[in-house]
Amino acid sequence: MNDNAGIKYLISYSTKTELSVNKYFDKEIKEASLIGKSSSELLKKFATLAKKGKKIRGALVVLGYQLAGGVDLKTIEDTSIFIEIFHSGILVHDDIVDEADMRRGLMTIHKQYQPYHFGQSMAVCAGDIAFYLSLNKLLSSKFPKERIIEAGKIYSDYVKRLIYGQILDINNHQLENTTQEEILNIFRYKTAEYTGVLPLLIGATLAGINDKQKISLLKEFGLCLGWVFQIRDDILGMYGDANTTGKPVGSDLIKGKITLFILHLFKHGNTSQINYIKQILGKKNINNNQLSEVQKILKQTDSYNYAINLGKQYVDKGLKIIPRITSNKKLANVLKSLLIYILERIN
Amino acid sequence: MNDNAGIKYLISYSTKTELSVNKYFDKEIKEASLIGKSSSELLKKFATLAKKGKKIRGALVVLGYQLAGGVDLKTIEDTSIFIEIFHSGILVHDDIVDEADMRRGLMTIHKQYQPYHFGQSMAVCAGDIAFYLSLNKLLSSKFPKERIIEAGKIYSDYVKRLIYGQILDINNHQLENTTQEEILNIFRYKTAEYTGVLPLLIGATLAGINDKQKISLLKEFGLCLGWVFQIRDDILGMYGDANTTGKPVGSDLIKGKITLFILHLFKHGNTSQINYIKQILGKKNINNNQLSEVQKILKQTDSYNYAINLGKQYVDKGLKIIPRITSNKKLANVLKSLLIYILERIN
Repeated sequence: MNDNAGIKYLISYSTKTELSVNKYFDKEIKEASLIGKSSSELLKKFATLAKKGKKIRGALVVLGYQLAGGVDLKTIEDTSIFIEIFHSGILVHDDIVDEADMRRGLMTIHKQYQPYHFGQSMAVCAGDIAFYLSLNKLLSSKFPKERIIEAGKIYSDYVKRLIYGQILDINNHQLENTTQEEILNIFRYKTAEYTGVLPLLIGATLAGINDKQKISLLKEFGLCLGWVFQIRDDILGMYGDANTTGKPVGSDLIKGKITLFILHLFKHGNTSQINYIKQILGKKNINNNQLSEVQKILKQTDSYNYAINLGKQYVDKGLKIIPRITSNKKLANVLKSLLIYILERIN
Repeated sequence: MNDNAGIKYLISYSTKTELSVNKYFDKEIKEASLIGKSSSELLKKFATLAKKGKKIRGALVVLGYQLAGGVDLKTIEDTSIFIEIFHSGILVHDDIVDEADMRRGLMTIHKQYQPYHFGQSMAVCAGDIAFYLSLNKLLSSKFPKERIIEAGKIYSDYVKRLIYGQILDINNHQLENTTQEEILNIFRYKTAEYTGVLPLLIGATLAGINDKQKISLLKEFGLCLGWVFQIRDDILGMYGDANTTGKPVGSDLIKGKITLFILHLFKHGNTSQINYIKQILGKKNINNNQLSEVQKILKQTDSYNYAINLGKQYVDKGLKIIPRITSNKKLANVLKSLLIYILERIN
């Protein structure tokens, strides 16, 4: 058994798809340039961003395909690119919403243009383009047509809920306006289902899965993986290193997001701790002292441990599902290692 | 022969799809409300906007289907809703870009929220939701799967180019930065192909068309119809009545758009006429005197007649294609009447 099987799977996926991603964007950029220069230049910027992704979702599409018994790796690798294109597109829109400056270590698309509103407009278009490039890529897949349609329905269904989650997230700046159930729905739809369930399910669908019990186990496992991803995201958002995450430390605080940490703290902190957090939340310039103070409070109220433990619980739950999903030792090991890696990742 | 066959076809389409559109949005709004209140409220606002469309594109999907011999009107009418959902979605994004206040006589989505950036964010999401609702609707169609895939490919292909056109349009505020070819490409991809060719072609594809010559005739006719639509849009943008267009008079001037009028004027006007226009173009507050002056200059330079005549030329070209597309007198009459209506429409 190799404990690095998960990260190796991700790296292998990135390496194997690199050439086809490059070729894909070169072709699309050339096509865009026939229509006009500003279109192809925007697509170039988008391609640069898209190529820098961790590509977890693309790799999970391939993994879901293999778990469902698929063997045409060349076709699934090529098709899987569609989810990475979509993901980069929705991030571009996210960054407009968050008024973010940095993404994957690069300037966000809307910040690459001046004046500001012009940049916003270009970024709206960059996301829109990504959605339809993604769709075109999926529909052009060589898999049987009924599987593609089924995959496309799952895709549109989960993305719909992802965006509903995003809408709640945009509204998630004042505790008074957002219920705890809604906050958990943000995590569920915006991250857990979208990151964990969607790609595995689409991969399995393209392999022609029809074993309902296996589908529901894949969903269960994907949800665990997605929750772990979200929890680690919250941890990185509060304690991560900007050099590896590509985002400023404390970015969730700056955005005023009510994360799992904050939810726990509001429940278990004392009045002065809660008031301190409320006062900091959503401030554009949070200095290192304030950040340290928040980090200290999160430890005092056990909110830090709560998040860490919740992550471990989901890892344990996920690990227990693996033997029921596959008897293939190699794939089982990838699933296990991936789950652990996602809780420990630094970016 | 009934000269109102085109407008009657549009009205009949609106009436026949009204119930299923209402039911569709009711179901989706209910689903969104299970995730969170702010999601379903945004979708409600979007539905109100979507229902107010002229629905030309949806009707053209049905018409394309009939022209290709399709007879399952119930299914095509239900499926055709997807293009109207998309269209309203892309308009929401357009309105963010244009910082527009009014659309279809309603406040634009981003203006329905405060503060401004919050409204922009909600409107970004409203458009994104529309794209995936639209996709889900198309993929859930009851037509044979290979036709749906083919229609989806055409859809994503044309929308890609529509957005490339939109990107050029955003950059189309300074003559120095945009070539005349690029300006014609804006009209071609953002309006003519998208409005005229896309819906007819998708309808025909869903009917299972495979006669290549007929496909190319449909494209040719669609392009004529699309150009007429664009030319009439330019005329309404300069001479239209805000009460019927739902947009302020002179809106293209305010946006600083280089329309067919302006292109012609820059070519044929004298220095003082050109300078006057350059000075006005893109100003947020254009008063009635300035608007009248621009209208006067457009008549002096014959730019007004140029646009009107160009519209008539495309109508004539389109009329000549009709007998080669169909021998069905009723459908031929609808095509003819629609072409004329689109050049004369007041909204």
